[in-house]
Amino acid sequence: MERSRLSTSFFALVAEHIQQVEERMRAHPNGNHPDIDLILEHLVSSGGKRVRPAVVLLTGGMLGGDQDRLITLAAAIELLHTATLVHDDLIDGALLRRGIPTLNTQWSSAATVLAGDYVFARSAGLAAATGAVNVMQVFSTTLTTIVSGEIAQLFANRGLANREDYYHRIHAKTASLFEAAAGSAAMISTDDEDIIAAMQGFGYGIGMAFQIVDDVLDFTGDQATVGKPVASDLRQGLITLPAIYYQESHPDNPDLQAVLGGAYHDEELMRRLIASIRSSGAIQQSMDEARGFVRRGIQSAENLPACPEHDALDELAEYFVKREA
Amino acid sequence: MERSRLSTSFFALVAEHIQQVEERMRAHPNGNHPDIDLILEHLVSSGGKRVRPAVVLLTGGMLGGDQDRLITLAAAIELLHTATLVHDDLIDGALLRRGIPTLNTQWSSAATVLAGDYVFARSAGLAAATGAVNVMQVFSTTLTTIVSGEIAQLFANRGLANREDYYHRIHAKTASLFEAAAGSAAMISTDDEDIIAAMQGFGYGIGMAFQIVDDVLDFTGDQATVGKPVASDLRQGLITLPAIYYQESHPDNPDLQAVLGGAYHDEELMRRLIASIRSSGAIQQSMDEARGFVRRGIQSAENLPACPEHDALDELAEYFVKREA
Repeated sequence: MERSRLSTSFFALVAEHIQQVEERMRAHPNGNHPDIDLILEHLVSSGGKRVRPAVVLLTGGMLGGDQDRLITLAAAIELLHTATLVHDDLIDGALLRRGIPTLNTQWSSAATVLAGDYVFARSAGLAAATGAVNVMQVFSTTLTTIVSGEIAQLFANRGLANREDYYHRIHAKTASLFEAAAGSAAMISTDDEDIIAAMQGFGYGIGMAFQIVDDVLDFTGDQATVGKPVASDLRQGLITLPAIYYQESHPDNPDLQAVLGGAYHDEELMRRLIASIRSSGAIQQSMDEARGFVRRGIQSAENLPACPEHDALDELAEYFVKREA
Repeated sequence: MERSRLSTSFFALVAEHIQQVEERMRAHPNGNHPDIDLILEHLVSSGGKRVRPAVVLLTGGMLGGDQDRLITLAAAIELLHTATLVHDDLIDGALLRRGIPTLNTQWSSAATVLAGDYVFARSAGLAAATGAVNVMQVFSTTLTTIVSGEIAQLFANRGLANREDYYHRIHAKTASLFEAAAGSAAMISTDDEDIIAAMQGFGYGIGMAFQIVDDVLDFTGDQATVGKPVASDLRQGLITLPAIYYQESHPDNPDLQAVLGGAYHDEELMRRLIASIRSSGAIQQSMDEARGFVRRGIQSAENLPACPEHDALDELAEYFVKREA
């Protein structure tokens, strides 16, 4: 099983609680249908780095929140993330997620749609179990944001390289849930609006950075590590930050013009363009921008209590721009 | 537009508020993507009788609940219902719902999955906007129950005529949401646990009756009115109450045995069996049972305040066993 978190020290503070988070993700209130148990077991054991639960637990730890409610919240956040992945993989027809076969390769589309719905339902149940109305509101707003973003992407015109659209899209797709994780963990722990806003800013910053790095790795990673073809977004006509920077410095590049015009399936042209982007300054510029988001995220929380959990949050934020997969 | 509610007097008390419920179902917090507006407009204007919002509004009206929160709750409940229908129709490949083309006939599967998710998200948002933690808990528990029931049905062995399974299934599919509608409307209006339990009992009774009548109409309705082939459940190997009663009185009927054994696609045999069930006492026995559920639902609430809303609730309950579509 993939457990890269074991090698990163900021997880040490919360490793034990993350096990409890996973137990709560698997648990079921009234006894599940055996097939639902199978699905949940598959989804939970397929893992992931659990960075969102770590953000929840470290934020709550720093602010003195109730441990049990934080574990419930962390499970709610991670299940919300899991549910969106289940439907995403179905829609994309993805075969693997983190090197493990996706649900849709083993179950019918019908079962996969319902499995995602079930995980949404359990996630909402755990969010409600925190007993905090504002957390429920964040939960539903975030889900609305994520799904709206996916719908917008589905209907979007391909090939438009627009910085504003890009930020909007990665906020919906990724940063909104990190913002919710840090913000709602703060809500569980304090009524102080400034502290809550500071942690939302932290979550926003690291979430934006996380997605930018994902988009950079899509260009720079090798297929074996990332588990999908290099530049998989660009191959679907989806323009991410490295391509946007490349376009800004090479506005007349014929390969990019051709791709923006729809030539996603010309393999030779695509390879040439990807090589050009990889060897251009666009990768470094994108990484600088990710580091800027991390820095502003850390600054947003800098006046919060100095403690091992705060150090671990900063370390986690820095890890987001150092990771290689 | 189908508006049978206009002809039934128990809607008169709440007709105006139901318009507000529909506005709230269409509303969107941060401005929607135009395609999302199209989807919501399609779903809301496709209508339905709005019996669940009527249960919410009448219950809250009887118990003196805050009107604005009740409208929000009614919109949350009806959107939850709508979301489950969107995914159901996709899974079943249904072409029509209430005589109107389903989403999945006009949008791709991907868009339909996401449209259902979006409606779930908005529904959760409205439930959270009631500001009641116990309502949120009911909301998520009910969603879990509904989806678990659908998953169980997907994996169920066909052809087993089992009364206990049947009750379990129709509770998950239909009664749980009526129970949630009446129960959570009571929660918005009072802290009195006995009153809340009485209204949950009311919702349970009328919900069970509603589904039994649906299952009877599946046998007795004509295709044009119901919008699907007669005995559509039996044709998929799904045994409902009329077939269970028929089996109990005709345990050795060879056609039924053949269908229980899997001969769903033998059209001649199926027509003969359907005709036998229609002309047997099973229809009447099933309707008697539905009337029993309605009676017990009404009794559960009989000690609650006498008022026009209470009368309307009783009338609505009686309507459930008189309706013809």
